Amino acid sequence: MSDINKVVLAYSGGLDTSVIVRWLQDTYQCEVVTFTADIGQGEEVEPARAKAEALGVKEIYIDDLREEFVRDFVFPMFRANTLYEGEYRLGTSIARPLIAKRLIEIANETGADAISHGATGKGNDQVRFELGAYALKPGIRVIAPWREWDLTSREKLMEYCEARDIPVDFARQKTKSPYSMDANLLHISYEGGVLEDPWQEAEEPMWRWSVSPEAAPDTPTYIELEYRRGDIVAIDGESMSPATVLEHLNRVGGANGIGRDDIVENRYVGMKSRGAYETPGGTIMLRAHRAMESLTLDREVAHLKDELMPRYAHIIYNGYWWSPERRMLQAAIDQSQEYVNGTVRLKLYKGNVIVCGRQSSDSLFDDRIATFEDDAGAYDQKDAEGFIKLNALRLRIAANRGRGML
Amino acid sequence: MSDINKVVLAYSGGLDTSVIVRWLQDTYQCEVVTFTADIGQGEEVEPARAKAEALGVKEIYIDDLREEFVRDFVFPMFRANTLYEGEYRLGTSIARPLIAKRLIEIANETGADAISHGATGKGNDQVRFELGAYALKPGIRVIAPWREWDLTSREKLMEYCEARDIPVDFARQKTKSPYSMDANLLHISYEGGVLEDPWQEAEEPMWRWSVSPEAAPDTPTYIELEYRRGDIVAIDGESMSPATVLEHLNRVGGANGIGRDDIVENRYVGMKSRGAYETPGGTIMLRAHRAMESLTLDREVAHLKDELMPRYAHIIYNGYWWSPERRMLQAAIDQSQEYVNGTVRLKLYKGNVIVCGRQSSDSLFDDRIATFEDDAGAYDQKDAEGFIKLNALRLRIAANRGRGML
Amino acid sequence: MSDINKVVLAYSGGLDTSVIVRWLQDTYQCEVVTFTADIGQGEEVEPARAKAEALGVKEIYIDDLREEFVRDFVFPMFRANTLYEGEYRLGTSIARPLIAKRLIEIANETGADAISHGATGKGNDQVRFELGAYALKPGIRVIAPWREWDLTSREKLMEYCEARDIPVDFARQKTKSPYSMDANLLHISYEGGVLEDPWQEAEEPMWRWSVSPEAAPDTPTYIELEYRRGDIVAIDGESMSPATVLEHLNRVGGANGIGRDDIVENRYVGMKSRGAYETPGGTIMLRAHRAMESLTLDREVAHLKDELMPRYAHIIYNGYWWSPERRMLQAAIDQSQEYVNGTVRLKLYKGNVIVCGRQSSDSLFDDRIATFEDDAGAYDQKDAEGFIKLNALRLRIAANRGRGML
Amino acid sequence: MSDINKVVLAYSGGLDTSVIVRWLQDTYQCEVVTFTADIGQGEEVEPARAKAEALGVKEIYIDDLREEFVRDFVFPMFRANTLYEGEYRLGTSIARPLIAKRLIEIANETGADAISHGATGKGNDQVRFELGAYALKPGIRVIAPWREWDLTSREKLMEYCEARDIPVDFARQKTKSPYSMDANLLHISYEGGVLEDPWQEAEEPMWRWSVSPEAAPDTPTYIELEYRRGDIVAIDGESMSPATVLEHLNRVGGANGIGRDDIVENRYVGMKSRGAYETPGGTIMLRAHRAMESLTLDREVAHLKDELMPRYAHIIYNGYWWSPERRMLQAAIDQSQEYVNGTVRLKLYKGNVIVCGRQSSDSLFDDRIATFEDDAGAYDQKDAEGFIKLNALRLRIAANRGRGML
Repeated sequence: MSDINKVVLAYSGGLDTSVIVRWLQDTYQCEVVTFTADIGQGEEVEPARAKAEALGVKEIYIDDLREEFVRDFVFPMFRANTLYEGEYRLGTSIARPLIAKRLIEIANETGADAISHGATGKGNDQVRFELGAYALKPGIRVIAPWREWDLTSREKLMEYCEARDIPVDFARQKTKSPYSMDANLLHISYEGGVLEDPWQEAEEPMWRWSVSPEAAPDTPTYIELEYRRGDIVAIDGESMSPATVLEHLNRVGGANGIGRDDIVENRYVGMKSRGAYETPGGTIMLRAHRAMESLTLDREVAHLKDELMPRYAHIIYNGYWWSPERRMLQAAIDQSQEYVNGTVRLKLYKGNVIVCGRQSSDSLFDDRIATFEDDAGAYDQKDAEGFIKLNALRLRIAANRGRGML
Repeated sequence: MSDINKVVLAYSGGLDTSVIVRWLQDTYQCEVVTFTADIGQGEEVEPARAKAEALGVKEIYIDDLREEFVRDFVFPMFRANTLYEGEYRLGTSIARPLIAKRLIEIANETGADAISHGATGKGNDQVRFELGAYALKPGIRVIAPWREWDLTSREKLMEYCEARDIPVDFARQKTKSPYSMDANLLHISYEGGVLEDPWQEAEEPMWRWSVSPEAAPDTPTYIELEYRRGDIVAIDGESMSPATVLEHLNRVGGANGIGRDDIVENRYVGMKSRGAYETPGGTIMLRAHRAMESLTLDREVAHLKDELMPRYAHIIYNGYWWSPERRMLQAAIDQSQEYVNGTVRLKLYKGNVIVCGRQSSDSLFDDRIATFEDDAGAYDQKDAEGFIKLNALRLRIAANRGRGML
Repeated sequence: MSDINKVVLAYSGGLDTSVIVRWLQDTYQCEVVTFTADIGQGEEVEPARAKAEALGVKEIYIDDLREEFVRDFVFPMFRANTLYEGEYRLGTSIARPLIAKRLIEIANETGADAISHGATGKGNDQVRFELGAYALKPGIRVIAPWREWDLTSREKLMEYCEARDIPVDFARQKTKSPYSMDANLLHISYEGGVLEDPWQEAEEPMWRWSVSPEAAPDTPTYIELEYRRGDIVAIDGESMSPATVLEHLNRVGGANGIGRDDIVENRYVGMKSRGAYETPGGTIMLRAHRAMESLTLDREVAHLKDELMPRYAHIIYNGYWWSPERRMLQAAIDQSQEYVNGTVRLKLYKGNVIVCGRQSSDSLFDDRIATFEDDAGAYDQKDAEGFIKLNALRLRIAANRGRGML
Repeated sequence: MSDINKVVLAYSGGLDTSVIVRWLQDTYQCEVVTFTADIGQGEEVEPARAKAEALGVKEIYIDDLREEFVRDFVFPMFRANTLYEGEYRLGTSIARPLIAKRLIEIANETGADAISHGATGKGNDQVRFELGAYALKPGIRVIAPWREWDLTSREKLMEYCEARDIPVDFARQKTKSPYSMDANLLHISYEGGVLEDPWQEAEEPMWRWSVSPEAAPDTPTYIELEYRRGDIVAIDGESMSPATVLEHLNRVGGANGIGRDDIVENRYVGMKSRGAYETPGGTIMLRAHRAMESLTLDREVAHLKDELMPRYAHIIYNGYWWSPERRMLQAAIDQSQEYVNGTVRLKLYKGNVIVCGRQSSDSLFDDRIATFEDDAGAYDQKDAEGFIKLNALRLRIAANRGRGML
């Protein structure tokens, strides 16, 4: 195991990844480079510096990746109206390729020959980190401590800390959430605890980013989102950067009880798991983007997007962001957004995201044609007969040959 | 035009189709058979008898089709989690093939050589009626008065009524809704009026089947839905027929502000139109069915269903229920539902349908494997390494050949 | 009918379109602009000028579109390995959008308010011409004489010619082929005659572009095709323009009995028809392009292309080249071709196109890994166990729950 | 390793699997049950009995599975016109699930707790065997010697034989083909040797089942295949069992130089490999089945099948025959074949399979409509105008809004 000289670790500053720093140093006799990113998880990242230093780390990377995260990952994904299994807004999945990319960039900068992460061997995240890493640097080595070590229980972990002088904030450990959580600017997720029984309702105190619909204000909030080429560029008339857009929507969504999901999903590694998610801004964005497209997108393009979306979603879910098939689909999706410009008006109320209006200078809604009133000849109703007759022709021929439908 | 002897008309008993009765008699010098169905539109159908008699109709069919509608059309459609363009629950679309079928059955029984309907030449319904009719009886003639006559304004229609002694309830005409509406057990729809401007919010008084989320009760309602092979067979422990299930869910959904949609959709005839829909029961059913499947369906089957769904949806939307391609897809969908058995627990609250729990004796959720706790060897985390390595192989080879991803 | 002042006609110079010139002049009292294109049909186009002049046409367009045809239509289509219904190389379909485009360009240049063509009301070509025209110039008027006039038999047409002094080459009419034919650089097609009975074999004299496999040389011909980004840029080491590539492959393919197809296909207008096609160069190109991709394309991209191809094919077949959905798919297809570079070696022999070799500096074939010999650790066979175990996990869980597969 | 008591081995009787028998006995100290199947590989299976007995095997299974193979695996697959990556007829892939099924059945009968096979750790076959086994018996243990042992070269294998007294037919070893081969009633495959260089042409002596096109007869052979529900039931008027059909077609196809393929394919384990295949009967069947469908299948069903086919193909290729997603697709495919009845006439000549005719009492080809002659009103050409106009509507609206296509 001595052939690894330096490893870049995705380091949160928490206990688990602190243990990993020491374990890597011990096990591989290698130098550890830590990388901590602000992707909007809502916790300070700077404290990770002192902790890493205390563990003897010499090369410490702390990055604010919030704008890149939303601009280059979240926004492109939402252009496709992406939902995994009809429900999941891919909040965890979409952050992983960015982490993988930075790990590899830092490995290149520091001359590291390996990367490491704190994801377990049962989940999707290990796959996402490692597929991304391999795709970007095929010769990279990957160390996944949770698949290798024998610290398989909290007790063993604590013993290890004690033996290696890793400082443990026991107060914090005691009040630790019973849930395994992950957060970034798009969402916060919860797994484990009572959620392991899919029949049990999640407990109210679990939720952190949103009030319950019951606790939300009794009066609705209206907002207007302005789109350019499928991305939100302004809210209520104010131009905003991508990360600011999402922060704003998280705040207003969470305050109105929006964005909670409780799902049983199929992991790539082959098992079902139950997760709870809060995605306030993402929930608003998905609904609004569809509304914007409903006015501006050609019908066949919209249908093609709908048929491609599930595949695009599981490509991302399974960890293949950095793959040629995702890029191929993205080329089509991005091409489709040329005219997705305009404004969507929403009413937010106690968990509901209600579309009230949409307008666009690129609208394909033609009121002269759609009207129930006299259309002054814009549409010739007699055309419909031929349209129906020829569309029915194959069905009539079949029926004539005795093929019954009943 | 004298070659038509008898025509079966889809007759609502309202003014428009009453005019059509007389117009058919006059124009085609033919006998008219009326067919009025209770498909849960919420209006008495029996009064249509007297009106038809007054118009000289001798063969009058009045059917209660509610159970057939839900059992043979609504339920099969919901097995596919069907949504048209990500939003529309196909409330109008799914009723048309049943009407078409009965029109043809009655044509066969009465020896009629034509059918007729009151749908306009701009909409989808003409297509759905006529494709169905042609598929079931290829030699049938179709008369679509709105595409043929010159009664293109309300004034001309009134003049026609006066000239032909068709009784007009002027009081009712005056208070007539400004919206074009359609209702059945699955939904009620609204088009026209202020909705013709997609930027305008629908007015509260328009909605008929549901209270607004604001007006809904301040305490949630919990219900449990029991599934067998993908269909709901009991609610809160009480066995119910298909139509009773949907009636029950409409009631409880509507009371909790559930099921309103405001959509710009793409019609088959090529234009965009804006519609508002209330689908309280259907909104609950869609969410619950996905939850039931999330526990019981294999991952790849679930993904395949998601990819096929948009096509299945537009087959129905476009009027091809009675087609070989719909039957082919239905065979696959129905086959997938074998194990979709169990119970879903929902919380209904001010427009929200919240999944709280799901359980099934056919559950594929294996808590021994999914647990964050020690799984006693049910899953070997080391397997993940090989899994990732081989899934990454093609990406690594490509990267080795210099194909950059960034 | 007097509101049309000038019409651009797709004019072949043959009898039928000559009759159309006169019929348009008579019926619409309008000026006719003729447009004749060389798209590789193998007949001189210049003689059309004198014929048009004789009919009193003042604006005559004669264009050589061969390079544009292959470069902008044929080549992009072949990047997708396009086959309609598994068999048809879309030789007719792909030429129509180019004709439609030129008709509209000429209408814009000459200030014409209508276009016209000689396609019948039963076929696909009318649809392709007219959808293209409407997409490019939505206000254009379309005159389709075969749908309007009463010259429905050859006799009536001859009478019309006589009455209007249209010169008929009776000698040629007598020896006229019994088949309806269409040709361009990609193919020649035959319909009608004995082909109207799908059980009857096509007669040998019908075929014009290829010898029969029996009559082809007894010794094979080898060729090497060089690809750049999915398109052929050289043959046997000689750089060639797109049209020259296709001409060359037609010649060598036809000489070796390659490219005959005899198909029953489904027309967009709803009927089945039987057609025979000779596509010598296209048959070679399809096989060779797949071979080039087999070496250079990522697996998932290749599979995605295969799943999208049938839809892309029917978009083109149905006449939607000039549509946003075709452009959206094209964006994905073109993106996929970045590394489809290299050389394919083929053996052509009596109807067979046999791939003998393929090589590429962008090859993803890694002989160090693929070898049956010792691979020096390039691939760790033990990885396969984890790969299989996790891929099997969902199947095992299902089987454990008693879901039998037999 | 002593926890395995009995293992069922897929035993060919050849040297490699004979070594495996001994290696299993030695390594696991367990009893070995051999299973040898005749699936049409063209070699006697009975000699395997004596060899197994000589190795001390007490439970020996020798089955003739040819009819089951074709009836339950090959025929269902061909109903979908299955091709992997546009070229490969899945000859190897489709035999594996049958072997897996018998292995598990025998494990159940003999009380074995494991199965074993001779597939390497680089290929697809290990995956197919093991996924099938796990799906059918989730608790089964799998022993894959090639992934476990260190007999990684022919020399080591020979040393092992010598050390364990395993009889080696050295004469045969010397004249051993340089190719790795696999055969069953559907095909014979070749990998390795000169094929490892994709630029090198396969050598003529490699091919075993077919003559070269050059060596095939100078006169064509005509055959007529009769279909019932998508399967061939008779050839040239003679009823035949499934296996007899395939044997017959292999014979006549091979004699006419039909069915050779030379492909670079993408393995499920992530690498590209080059293989050569002879599939004489399958090549005929694929072409003929499409021809039968072209006459009898509805257009939309045909297109849906074409879009689903690539996925169905890679499900089988990747080893998921025994999966719920394959069954779901099969339900749709089988449903589509109800009217695929009739006769196809083929001309076989020097590598070419030429469709000459097709007829069916379930034909949807309607010559009264398709004719170029007067159709007596069966089709109203004027219907086409409305058909085109409404199909163009969305394109015209977009163009009116200034969306250019050029």
